[in-house]
Amino acid sequence: MTTPCIICCAITGSLPRKEDNPAVPITIEEQIESTHEAFEAGASMVHAHVRNDDQTPSSDPEKFARLKEGVEKHCPGMIIQLSTGGRSGAGTARGGMLPLAPDMASLSVGSNNFPTRVYENPPDLVDWLASEMRTHHVTPEVEAFDLSHILNAIRMHEAGILPGKLYVQFVMGVKNAMPADKAVFDFYVQTMKDRAPDAQWCAAGIGPNQLVLNEWSIAAGGHTRT
Amino acid sequence: MTTPCIICCAITGSLPRKEDNPAVPITIEEQIESTHEAFEAGASMVHAHVRNDDQTPSSDPEKFARLKEGVEKHCPGMIIQLSTGGRSGAGTARGGMLPLAPDMASLSVGSNNFPTRVYENPPDLVDWLASEMRTHHVTPEVEAFDLSHILNAIRMHEAGILPGKLYVQFVMGVKNAMPADKAVFDFYVQTMKDRAPDAQWCAAGIGPNQLVLNEWSIAAGGHTRT
Ligand SMILES: [Zn+2]
Ligand SMILES: [Zn+2]
Ligand SMILES: [Zn+2]
Ligand SMILES: [Zn+2]
Repeated sequence: MTTPCIICCAITGSLPRKEDNPAVPITIEEQIESTHEAFEAGASMVHAHVRNDDQTPSSDPEKFARLKEGVEKHCPGMIIQLSTGGRSGAGTARGGMLPLAPDMASLSVGSNNFPTRVYENPPDLVDWLASEMRTHHVTPEVEAFDLSHILNAIRMHEAGILPGKLYVQFVMGVKNAMPADKAVFDFYVQTMKDRAPDAQWCAAGIGPNQLVLNEWSIAAGGHTRT
Repeated sequence: MTTPCIICCAITGSLPRKEDNPAVPITIEEQIESTHEAFEAGASMVHAHVRNDDQTPSSDPEKFARLKEGVEKHCPGMIIQLSTGGRSGAGTARGGMLPLAPDMASLSVGSNNFPTRVYENPPDLVDWLASEMRTHHVTPEVEAFDLSHILNAIRMHEAGILPGKLYVQFVMGVKNAMPADKAVFDFYVQTMKDRAPDAQWCAAGIGPNQLVLNEWSIAAGGHTRT
């Protein structure tokens, strides 16, 4: 009996625009169709950000609601994961869509540097997002930008702070955070195996590291993000 | 031929007050005498923070200058390391003492969570502090609160951004950052050996983890912080 690999498709991301790639879906209608295509191609999870009309990041719960409704209709059974990442807003605005009770939502449990700024996830915000996820039965995908974030996720899950099964994503290749490094990746995998054997993990490589991380994670028995 | 162990004494720290421990040196005069005692007891490096009269953290270059002058007089040959940590101020105020050209200064090269807030070290501030250290020939002690900080330090040193010999301190036991974890510590040591064999490293445990980290680092051939 083998474990199926979950392919999670991040249809839009938080930054790329039509100028960067004309295929990036920006409107909700485009996002629903893009998700449908990924679903038909074998993706079983969608990771979603929403955008304003000018393509800038948004946290608007109404947009997330329309997207969720459309994906549920077009892609029955697909796991819907909404982003609570910090590019679209600050503070509790980041969790305004959690009452929609998506299957999953991303959750950062630590802070780190991004290419030009600090990615701020202060402890009280992390605790609030986790409590909203408990209230609405949303399973977090923990976005681990560094090793301590993995240990923190395991500790929080053991303490009952993170609802559902533990699901951790290793994020690599972000400038000024963790590079796409095979020895570190192997240590991440071993850490999960040793300390959270019932958990699932996946990995995401940013930009040119995407295919590299796809290969590493599939070969190591993890799930993956496209 | 064995490598001598450098014992670095952090005489004051950024937070403890007389109420917490009557022996904490707060005034410059107390700090000089405390450093002298540590020097006599075998410490070869002092890590210094300065304080305002009300015991709150300060970055005042004039206070650092008086401390440096006193330590040079009382403790000839002792390595003086001044803190550029973020509890005493924000932005470039954190590096206002670097023109004093101490032997060393602490430097964070990434951001992370502290018990109740984000420890913010944005990339442009890190670059500015490093450039000030190059200008004034100050060797940084990189404070690594997470694994990516170690990799960043190695990369920056190879790129010529960090002056002097590479010296990295593993900081463990800070709540919401990296716990005092032996498997992680061993991976840190291996990472330094594999990727920066000419560098030196030390380790600091916060609070009750201090003696634990002293034992681990001395046993593994590193330097240590008291
Ligand atoms: Zn995302
Ligand atoms: Zn469709
Ligand atoms: Zn310090
Ligand atoms: Zn003296």
